[in-house]
Amino acid sequence: MAHVIDSEVFLAFSTYATIVILKMMFMSVLTGYFRITRKAFANIEDTHMAKTPEERKKMLVVNKDVERVRRCHQNDLENIIPFVLIGLLYTLTSPQLSTALLLFRLFVGSRFVHTIAYVMQLPQPSRGLSWIVGMAATICMGYHVLSTVLRL
Amino acid sequence: MAHVIDSEVFLAFSTYATIVILKMMFMSVLTGYFRITRKAFANIEDTHMAKTPEERKKMLVVNKDVERVRRCHQNDLENIIPFVLIGLLYTLTSPQLSTALLLFRLFVGSRFVHTIAYVMQLPQPSRGLSWIVGMAATICMGYHVLSTVLRL
Amino acid sequence: MAHVIDSEVFLAFSTYATIVILKMMFMSVLTGYFRITRKAFANIEDTHMAKTPEERKKMLVVNKDVERVRRCHQNDLENIIPFVLIGLLYTLTSPQLSTALLLFRLFVGSRFVHTIAYVMQLPQPSRGLSWIVGMAATICMGYHVLSTVLRL
Repeated sequence: MAHVIDSEVFLAFSTYATIVILKMMFMSVLTGYFRITRKAFANIEDTHMAKTPEERKKMLVVNKDVERVRRCHQNDLENIIPFVLIGLLYTLTSPQLSTALLLFRLFVGSRFVHTIAYVMQLPQPSRGLSWIVGMAATICMGYHVLSTVLRL
Repeated sequence: MAHVIDSEVFLAFSTYATIVILKMMFMSVLTGYFRITRKAFANIEDTHMAKTPEERKKMLVVNKDVERVRRCHQNDLENIIPFVLIGLLYTLTSPQLSTALLLFRLFVGSRFVHTIAYVMQLPQPSRGLSWIVGMAATICMGYHVLSTVLRL
Repeated sequence: MAHVIDSEVFLAFSTYATIVILKMMFMSVLTGYFRITRKAFANIEDTHMAKTPEERKKMLVVNKDVERVRRCHQNDLENIIPFVLIGLLYTLTSPQLSTALLLFRLFVGSRFVHTIAYVMQLPQPSRGLSWIVGMAATICMGYHVLSTVLRL
């Protein structure tokens, strides 16, 4: 184990995976921020700052800024978790450090661009391209895993 | 590997991670239970117990109890998966057993409280606080990983 | 590490986990395909192919084919990620190769059936049964992990 866990590739993977997961968790905080500033909640028990029952009901609305952040968070779940899972298996196949670093950096960079493009509503294809770069990095690693370990 | 996988921290991590993932999977069963008892489905092919086509269409509704369980499940996906992924990397950095156990127990306990508070609609801040405790435990582990292995 | 990572069970796990995660990622592509062919988008900046602002707004609709693929993708997230996480811990408990292969194949097979049944709207219980088979395989592995490593 020592030579796998202490390998440069594993340390790099741990770093990038942790950063990108923490970034994904930050989307929850951002959703909370938008829910509070836009006064748009999903649960009646979250509207306790309202004074009257009518006011509380009015706070149970769908707000477009909140929904945008939630879609961005969902896209993170759909892309970042596969990256971390496939990335871990990829790391254990002892890939070349330079290739691995390139793929990790491309993925993590692309996801930060993706979030900025999504939340700030930048014109396409900024969001589309960053999504494709992230997908491509994960698929590359998946292909490498399959071509190295394939046992069906 | 033997001394990592057989370490007390790894055994404890495997136990808590498995328990909390099984708990998350249980939310699917709970959603199914509420869909059947509330007769609220999302797919037309799931309404085969209805007799007439009109009755089938009436079953394609959004029910507030079903939506509540689904939001709880979604919150689990957003919090429990990051815990397991960061927790695995954290475990591999050979942390102190007592600290690791404290973080694992805090996280798993907080998620059970969170689910009860969400599904039974307990007044805030019960749900909010349990969410924050879980987030804090995961962020602590992420910080520990980054401060131990950082390779950018 | 060598004897764990080079073990037949670990190689088989890496293969099946990678295949089923790539299959899950394919659901994003399918969602994109349905969004474009059905002209049903969630973000205003994605409707740049429209000529007039009215046409753009008309493209921000909820389409039932798109929603079906998204529900299928969500079900994948709720089932495939727990399989990969618990499956990794299960693999590290050095299970018997034949049992492990059976569980991995059952799970991956059931998820392909599930997706086909969901997207092509096959009559129940095709989708329900394939979902149960997948759940059962993951729960079996989780039970095996807990009965082997339990440290509370």
